[in-house]
Amino acid sequence: MKKLPRDAEASNVLVGEVDFLETPFVAFVRLQQAVMLGALTEVPVPTRFMFVLLGPKGKSKSYREIGRAIATLMSDEVFHDIAYKAKGRKDLLAGIDEFLDEVIVLPPGEWDPDIRIEPPKSLPSSDKRKNMYAGGEAPQMNGDTPHDTGHGGGGGGGGHQVGEELQCTKKFCGGLILDVKRKLPFFASDFYDALHIQSLSAILFIYLGTVTNAITFGGLLGDATDNMQGVLESFLGTALSGAVFCLLAGQPLTILSSTGPVLVFERLLFNFSKDNGFDYLEFRLWIGLWSGLFCLVLVATDASFLVQYFTRFTEEGFSALISFIFIYDAFKKMIKLAHHNPINSEFDHNLITQYDCNSSTLLDTSAWTNRTDLVCGVLQENATWASLTQHQCKEFGGLLVGKACDYVPDITLMSFILFLGTYTCSMALKKFKTSRFFPTTVRKLISDFAIILTILLFCGIDALVGVDTPKLIVPSEFKPTSPARGWFIPPFGGNPWWVYLAAALPALLVTILIFMDQQITAVIVNRKEHKLKKGAGYHLDLFWVAVLMILCSFMGLPWYVAATVISIAHIDSLKMETQTSAPGEQPKFLGVREQRVTGIFVFLLTGLSVFMAPILKFIPMPVLYGVFLYMGVASLNGVQFMDRLQLLLMPAKHQPDLIYLRHVPQRRIHLFTFIQVLCLALLWILKSTVAAIIFPVMILALVAVRKAMDYVFSQHDLSYLDDVIPEKDKKKKEDEKKKKNKKKGSIDSEIDYVSSRRRDK
Amino acid sequence: MKKLPRDAEASNVLVGEVDFLETPFVAFVRLQQAVMLGALTEVPVPTRFMFVLLGPKGKSKSYREIGRAIATLMSDEVFHDIAYKAKGRKDLLAGIDEFLDEVIVLPPGEWDPDIRIEPPKSLPSSDKRKNMYAGGEAPQMNGDTPHDTGHGGGGGGGGHQVGEELQCTKKFCGGLILDVKRKLPFFASDFYDALHIQSLSAILFIYLGTVTNAITFGGLLGDATDNMQGVLESFLGTALSGAVFCLLAGQPLTILSSTGPVLVFERLLFNFSKDNGFDYLEFRLWIGLWSGLFCLVLVATDASFLVQYFTRFTEEGFSALISFIFIYDAFKKMIKLAHHNPINSEFDHNLITQYDCNSSTLLDTSAWTNRTDLVCGVLQENATWASLTQHQCKEFGGLLVGKACDYVPDITLMSFILFLGTYTCSMALKKFKTSRFFPTTVRKLISDFAIILTILLFCGIDALVGVDTPKLIVPSEFKPTSPARGWFIPPFGGNPWWVYLAAALPALLVTILIFMDQQITAVIVNRKEHKLKKGAGYHLDLFWVAVLMILCSFMGLPWYVAATVISIAHIDSLKMETQTSAPGEQPKFLGVREQRVTGIFVFLLTGLSVFMAPILKFIPMPVLYGVFLYMGVASLNGVQFMDRLQLLLMPAKHQPDLIYLRHVPQRRIHLFTFIQVLCLALLWILKSTVAAIIFPVMILALVAVRKAMDYVFSQHDLSYLDDVIPEKDKKKKEDEKKKKNKKKGSIDSEIDYVSSRRRDK
Repeated sequence: MKKLPRDAEASNVLVGEVDFLETPFVAFVRLQQAVMLGALTEVPVPTRFMFVLLGPKGKSKSYREIGRAIATLMSDEVFHDIAYKAKGRKDLLAGIDEFLDEVIVLPPGEWDPDIRIEPPKSLPSSDKRKNMYAGGEAPQMNGDTPHDTGHGGGGGGGGHQVGEELQCTKKFCGGLILDVKRKLPFFASDFYDALHIQSLSAILFIYLGTVTNAITFGGLLGDATDNMQGVLESFLGTALSGAVFCLLAGQPLTILSSTGPVLVFERLLFNFSKDNGFDYLEFRLWIGLWSGLFCLVLVATDASFLVQYFTRFTEEGFSALISFIFIYDAFKKMIKLAHHNPINSEFDHNLITQYDCNSSTLLDTSAWTNRTDLVCGVLQENATWASLTQHQCKEFGGLLVGKACDYVPDITLMSFILFLGTYTCSMALKKFKTSRFFPTTVRKLISDFAIILTILLFCGIDALVGVDTPKLIVPSEFKPTSPARGWFIPPFGGNPWWVYLAAALPALLVTILIFMDQQITAVIVNRKEHKLKKGAGYHLDLFWVAVLMILCSFMGLPWYVAATVISIAHIDSLKMETQTSAPGEQPKFLGVREQRVTGIFVFLLTGLSVFMAPILKFIPMPVLYGVFLYMGVASLNGVQFMDRLQLLLMPAKHQPDLIYLRHVPQRRIHLFTFIQVLCLALLWILKSTVAAIIFPVMILALVAVRKAMDYVFSQHDLSYLDDVIPEKDKKKKEDEKKKKNKKKGSIDSEIDYVSSRRRDK
Repeated sequence: MKKLPRDAEASNVLVGEVDFLETPFVAFVRLQQAVMLGALTEVPVPTRFMFVLLGPKGKSKSYREIGRAIATLMSDEVFHDIAYKAKGRKDLLAGIDEFLDEVIVLPPGEWDPDIRIEPPKSLPSSDKRKNMYAGGEAPQMNGDTPHDTGHGGGGGGGGHQVGEELQCTKKFCGGLILDVKRKLPFFASDFYDALHIQSLSAILFIYLGTVTNAITFGGLLGDATDNMQGVLESFLGTALSGAVFCLLAGQPLTILSSTGPVLVFERLLFNFSKDNGFDYLEFRLWIGLWSGLFCLVLVATDASFLVQYFTRFTEEGFSALISFIFIYDAFKKMIKLAHHNPINSEFDHNLITQYDCNSSTLLDTSAWTNRTDLVCGVLQENATWASLTQHQCKEFGGLLVGKACDYVPDITLMSFILFLGTYTCSMALKKFKTSRFFPTTVRKLISDFAIILTILLFCGIDALVGVDTPKLIVPSEFKPTSPARGWFIPPFGGNPWWVYLAAALPALLVTILIFMDQQITAVIVNRKEHKLKKGAGYHLDLFWVAVLMILCSFMGLPWYVAATVISIAHIDSLKMETQTSAPGEQPKFLGVREQRVTGIFVFLLTGLSVFMAPILKFIPMPVLYGVFLYMGVASLNGVQFMDRLQLLLMPAKHQPDLIYLRHVPQRRIHLFTFIQVLCLALLWILKSTVAAIIFPVMILALVAVRKAMDYVFSQHDLSYLDDVIPEKDKKKKEDEKKKKNKKKGSIDSEIDYVSSRRRDK
């Protein structure tokens, strides 16, 4: 009953054999009004149609077959529409004819008629059938009809809408105003749409990712800028920028974060300031102000419309590369951890008596007495070298002597267990949704909370084993990392006046960098395949990024742009699917829970993390690195580029039934993939050098390569791989649309057409 | 061309439109002799049939459809038989009619006609269609025909043949003689059938399993018998018994090994002998002699025919239990290893200066000088307590002092990484066969060598990390473990005369134990689903087990019976499948490479392991425990009992399309499973107590429970779960067979029938 639509009506098919008939008797009845016929129907649904077949005795089997055929006919969407509107027998017969034309006939032979045909992932709509008559085309041939719409074509579909969001309005702030107009009606729903348990899981998952990112980047930034910006600035900046952005921006699913290129820029800037005796923070403030201004100019002039030239080739290349970097970074961090905690591969338990590590001094013992003044404050009076801890020994200029000094037992191995375990377990739990076990609700819950469950599990394992693995340490005091600065950077006084103007030059670079980084992620987030319903807001997004950049510059906080991988993870954790209940029916992807609450909460929690230090310190870092690895791998999912990479290793006969494989020659696909790989490899190399700063600008290089390919190859072929719609297809689609509009809504005319078709025969 | 049968002939279907015709013209031609028609056929195959359709212009599409229909018709096995023999147009029309009756019609609607229908795992044979006419049954109805044969029914099928092998001949040694007669013709092929790369992989895989088993059981046996039988005896016994058995027994796929119950018996026997002052080895020799004799009596009287009363319920219960014990043992060994190498969970790298472990003595220093006589032989003269190793310190009655003494760093964690890694990796590589990547040959090779590759990989990782994990240590000198015994046990002189006779009593227990343990494994190995072609040899197997038992008793070596899990692993590693080449075609399981070579080599290598100690010592034990875990889990594959256990957690709508689910009510299946679980739980408890000795006899209890269930439930239902064929089904099958024989081979009569059927219409 749950699966029945509200106004469903029944058709009753009755067959039987009687003594008194010599020839079969058939009646098909349509009632004026649907009526309840009591126990006749299995479910309490009013009956509209009746089919009665009575015949002489002895052929009950074939009667039953006829009955089944009629029942099948009545369950067909197109036919029962016709049955509702039919004016006479002719219309019905025409409908049956149409139905028979659509029937697929499977010959006996090398297949098992007992097989269970899986329900398709996406249903082909019956509009095509309905429209076919309108267009007067010949009936569809079995089997070899090309289905250009790409239903069920695996990696097919995709691409972003080049809708009104990206049209150049040619008015001042035209795009921005349209964005606000578009998003405003959804503002209230952006809050109540979040009321779902899934949001909780998304908040926790993304929160952990954000905190880890804030700590990592904060640490690196502190290292690069001599603690002028450190971990605490990173936390405060992330919380402030993220929360404001999620509350007010055009696309609240985007998650802001520090990114690599910004970090490289800060490092260069700090060194430049130091070498030239500039006040770093003030110089940076002016660059931020100029950049913010440039960005606002870009917003006002609708420059974001350029984004539509990013095709699938560019988007996928960029997001795949960022994912690879994420995966690579996770491993790099683990290897660094292993270097910090070296394993003693020479350890022999029998010789344990020979391993020790003692504090001693190279100098004579007088060195010790010389330092009593220092020692007394920290240590007990009767302290000796032997009683010092490792840090104390080093502090007092002592030397560690012994075979055991250089090694840290267990920690590295335990970290690898946690790292790989977290990754494997979260992958497995995420996939649990499609397992056959347990009811749908339970599976869905487990899958939604996969990462949180995994983190809890591995925190538990870590606590159980008790090895001192490195833990997540967040700053617990709220004050600038460097005592030399406050929470407001005065704009004047530190540098000569011409520096304020000269700052416009580096600001130009920062602007391009921010614009590219922000918009490519926005495009990836707004992809058509995410089925977002509330529209994008490229101009509004950039507006807030610019405003926040100015704010952060004044407060001496890092700058933030949209982060690709975490944003994709955010969307993934908010995906909605149909609650299936028919056996074997595939869950259908309905869209993403578009709202602002998860983002806001994530960043509020990030801000409050300073007070949550006692809880957070139980989370081992390797577990979080495992989550990073998971995020990187998960964000590669459904990327056509990855599918094509896999095709390289796949013999033709095992290849999945992808739509582009039907239309583009194999070799051309491989060439396309190869060029993409080449581009990404070059970008990767670039990323590893100091040129990383112009990394986002390289998106333009990708766009250029893609354009060049269009000239070298024929355009039509590649359109199946990329989502540029060739001109002739566009025209065709428009024609179809027109035709549809002409005939739309008039089922009567359809029947007329079907009837006339039959008459023709 | 590879997929075409040798004497294939072509049918050419030609359609076209011409100006000069007003009505379509059709011709169907059968040539007297197949002739080559040059480039007309796509592949160089002689043509036998021609279909020509020419018609007026303008309807080329429908001509093509007719052409396709004819081509489909000609590709049907049944129709083209009819076409070969048809005497006129009527026969052909009758054939088309028959074909149309078999056609499956799929209505348009909620499915995608673009879907790819997977080729079935097993083809339904067309005999049914051919025979249908012979039996004069009504044409098959679409969809709801029950297919009791269970094609593609997942867990269906199975069961062992109750063939001539298990019939009671009622002659002296009748079964044994039949066994020899049956196996002798295959003896030569048992050697040349092994010529395949797969055999190499099987040898290495099973060898490692056997060696690990020999070491484990040898160690336990040495512990139980005060080294009267130790690791070296275990190696020698395994090698000798295994090689002789594989060379001469009835089922060379069976792998002999020590088993748990025998171990428990030895422990009890040794303690009993010690308590009563008996000579253990001599007492054991007499028990062995009596048991051997009893077994030979069982062979001579064809007692193995009783085996046919083991049904699927018993077999699967037993093999599942043994697999569970295998899995449990693997984990138990790992936990034991962890206890031996405790992790220091309090370790803090900063306090490393405080951790050490020194040798010292509780007594005053005079204890040291008292022992100089002992010390001088081993140590340098200026040795002090501090310079002693841990073992030396303990040897000299010293005491280890310090926080670091009780802990062993890294080893436990590294062991767990190796253990879980080996298991995961071998599982993944084994499944690689069904992956989409790489050509079939490569995938097959990787899958065949999965375990060896995994072991090499993880030995490499172990060597790379360099942690001192416990390694496989085989004895490297060839002499009895205990100096108190030789390689031949004299039968007289150690015990009083009445002990020789009294030994018959425990021998009775041993006989039942050996018989049950041996035969249940033999039944599992000879299951129908393994598709063994060379027949079984239950009597011959038992004969050799008895002979080897006598031999081992004389040499003071352990006794050996068939080991379930390793035998299944042996069979799994020798499975043959079709080399598929048609796209998407499922590989078909052809049977097992039945031969004696792999077994013989495994045991020869086991014997030679004594000389391979320098190579084997690189293999870490945790890796081998991982292989054990893999074996245990893999042997649960395809066990219907496990499928049913999974069903318990599965909502009805997600359940696979298993044959028994169609016929037995869900609740009864669950009850059946529940009773089986209960039985196994009881057996498990029994196994954990000293009663483990009567464990194999408990098979009888399983048989009894199964019999009791037949009385409580209706018999017919359960037959789908178990493989007892109910009487009425048996009769039906025989009837069918008779019918088939009557009509077999006469395609002409079939055509006559088909024609007559048409005429009836």
